[in-house]
Amino acid sequence: MSESFDAVDAIRAKRDRQELPDDLIEWVIDAYTRGAIADEQMAALAMAILLNGMSRREIARWTAAMIASGERMSFDTLSRPTADKHSTGGVGDKITLPLAPLVAACGVAVPQLSGRGLGHTGGTLDKLESVPGWRASLSNQEMLDQLEDVGAVICAAGAGLAPADKKLYALRDVTGTVEAIPLIASSIMSKKIAEGTGVLVLDVKVGSGAFMKTVEDARELARTMVDLGTDAGVHTVALLTDMATPLGLTAGNALEVQESIEVLAGGGPDDVVELTLALAREMLEGAGRTDIDPADALADGRAMDVWRRMIAAQGGDPAATLPVAAEQTQVMADRDGVLTRLDALQVGVAAWRLGAGRARKEDPVQAGAGVTLHAKPGDTVRAGRPLMTLHTDTPERFARAEQTLAGAWTIGSGKQIAPRSLVMERIAADES
Amino acid sequence: MSESFDAVDAIRAKRDRQELPDDLIEWVIDAYTRGAIADEQMAALAMAILLNGMSRREIARWTAAMIASGERMSFDTLSRPTADKHSTGGVGDKITLPLAPLVAACGVAVPQLSGRGLGHTGGTLDKLESVPGWRASLSNQEMLDQLEDVGAVICAAGAGLAPADKKLYALRDVTGTVEAIPLIASSIMSKKIAEGTGVLVLDVKVGSGAFMKTVEDARELARTMVDLGTDAGVHTVALLTDMATPLGLTAGNALEVQESIEVLAGGGPDDVVELTLALAREMLEGAGRTDIDPADALADGRAMDVWRRMIAAQGGDPAATLPVAAEQTQVMADRDGVLTRLDALQVGVAAWRLGAGRARKEDPVQAGAGVTLHAKPGDTVRAGRPLMTLHTDTPERFARAEQTLAGAWTIGSGKQIAPRSLVMERIAADES
Repeated sequence: MSESFDAVDAIRAKRDRQELPDDLIEWVIDAYTRGAIADEQMAALAMAILLNGMSRREIARWTAAMIASGERMSFDTLSRPTADKHSTGGVGDKITLPLAPLVAACGVAVPQLSGRGLGHTGGTLDKLESVPGWRASLSNQEMLDQLEDVGAVICAAGAGLAPADKKLYALRDVTGTVEAIPLIASSIMSKKIAEGTGVLVLDVKVGSGAFMKTVEDARELARTMVDLGTDAGVHTVALLTDMATPLGLTAGNALEVQESIEVLAGGGPDDVVELTLALAREMLEGAGRTDIDPADALADGRAMDVWRRMIAAQGGDPAATLPVAAEQTQVMADRDGVLTRLDALQVGVAAWRLGAGRARKEDPVQAGAGVTLHAKPGDTVRAGRPLMTLHTDTPERFARAEQTLAGAWTIGSGKQIAPRSLVMERIAADES
Repeated sequence: MSESFDAVDAIRAKRDRQELPDDLIEWVIDAYTRGAIADEQMAALAMAILLNGMSRREIARWTAAMIASGERMSFDTLSRPTADKHSTGGVGDKITLPLAPLVAACGVAVPQLSGRGLGHTGGTLDKLESVPGWRASLSNQEMLDQLEDVGAVICAAGAGLAPADKKLYALRDVTGTVEAIPLIASSIMSKKIAEGTGVLVLDVKVGSGAFMKTVEDARELARTMVDLGTDAGVHTVALLTDMATPLGLTAGNALEVQESIEVLAGGGPDDVVELTLALAREMLEGAGRTDIDPADALADGRAMDVWRRMIAAQGGDPAATLPVAAEQTQVMADRDGVLTRLDALQVGVAAWRLGAGRARKEDPVQAGAGVTLHAKPGDTVRAGRPLMTLHTDTPERFARAEQTLAGAWTIGSGKQIAPRSLVMERIAADES
């Protein structure tokens, strides 16, 4: 590619609210990936994008250039259609674990490339690694074989997909530019489009425990990603879902695996079941399988059967006992009444501080650490009875976790609160 | 200083339009100077400052922190008051050369720390280095001695003044963040305040050949700098002056020294004399010397006498013949009429391309290269007669310089244009 472009010209253009032309965007991504644009130049450009935005065309071209920086996978040889799900991350969000085997049990292959957790939202791979023997890394061929045989794979994304995104994400993380919606959208979608899924359902979280705190921001991110997927030929739908309070009754790695197994066994918390089924229906509908009700596959054990085969195919023992933290302590309700609020962010940070998450990429996580909830908003609670249990191998962490939880809940004087609607909005491709 | 701060928190705060607290600003400048904040982090912060601005308090603290990063000079031991001038840079702006000896001849010492040129505006040190033998570098003691003996010094700023600014300026240059008014103002003023002058007169240029293209931007920059100087106890005044067309009849190093000597001899172009006297009067008034008319010191040779002593004190030969470029060519008027427009930027870029300026810091400049104007806006011109002469040692540069000058002037059909007002506005300390 010609070096007729200049990084400073690109920065100035975005700084001055101009639209970047296609060839300039392609040059920027290519030059940054090979080191011809310095980190400090990309940081200035990222901040200008965050503050001045990008048009739909610019975001599409930026995403295409990131895809072009690496390999593309193809599932065309599979005998089944493919559908994937991506969540923007929340507290207690273990939905991928029951969802992938459930959708596979309904005849649609699920190639779920996942990540590890950083900060207060857990990572799907960290959760599954609490299953003895399970491994996250597969070759592309192993992934294809497992998709054909089992129908579901949850594994780490290879280094070959969108390397430009890996470099850019690391830069954004240290320069206060993670929050740029065009860059979030292109980061997620470049990997999902390069992965080659036919259908993509996006779970865009909204609320205190989510990256997007307001419905407006979540809607803009969802619309941007749906447009990107649609323009790239991927059937893409987004659900905006509530993340004001944790999903289910657990936050932590093995704790969430255990809760997911309960869902696959036909039980589990209502909200986890509701969201799993809502996302499954979107994935099946996108893949043309409107004839099947996923609730049946949960009830009759077919989803659990795929789960066991999926875990075993990656070296895990689905019958093994899950790790339990060495120490527990309980947090008590301070009055009688109805729990009207339980803050997702504070519970997520507490679980993280107990050892369920990591502060730096290279940190280990504790398999058994986390938080178990004994009540959710709407439930009646009694003074002196446990509201939650904290789990950790390192009990010196209890004090900071308890501090984190100060003010995390409200107990009202008896009136029931209106049940919240978990799925707040559905955003599909423009008809235009 | 404690490391209780985090660079990402500072970036996020400015990104989200918050005011940075004093201790955070001090930490940012200190940490960046010693390498604890990475270039990519400072680049993102600089872009956020450019797009979201800074309050007067933030700019003052940022400037103070840059001053604190290095040494401060003091002229308290001098027997005379001190006054300095700073220009934001223009084409043909040789005013420092006659101004410094003129003000010194009127009894006020002028400690003029200057820079080299980069891009289309020339540097004062580059101009003086065309005088055989003259050297730009002086120790602080040599500078003080010369100020006491001669009354005027024009020399290079030492590395000890505001080292944070040196590092930050180099970063801004490659990240599209030069144009941030808070950063321009703090860059200029940190050096001038650290230098220790008692009076500072700012010549803020406006127009095509200037950094600030609009009166509004120039006014904002001037007001910001006047506030900074005033808050730091420096008597500070700014003049907004017109830079739509070059100052005087020359742009180039030795060419501008020659023109300056003509002004010191009591001649020279009207606009150069007018601006020199206007700035001299501001400097003298700031120093409390309202009893003296600098026009007298130009007319009676006292300013020329100081010039000769100033040049000789720094090793230069004031009687030496100045370098002349090896080759000349002329650019002709294309019709009869009145020259109504002659673009400063295009003339500046032409002089730069002829060899008067440098593209990179380490490039040499040609002493004799540049442009001589034979007409200024308002003058009558004749088709086929010379409009300007181009000078260079490397005649292969003529073609690009001529291309640069295409469309640089307009010749009208006979009517005289209204004489322009060189000094457009005066901005002094708030009375509040």
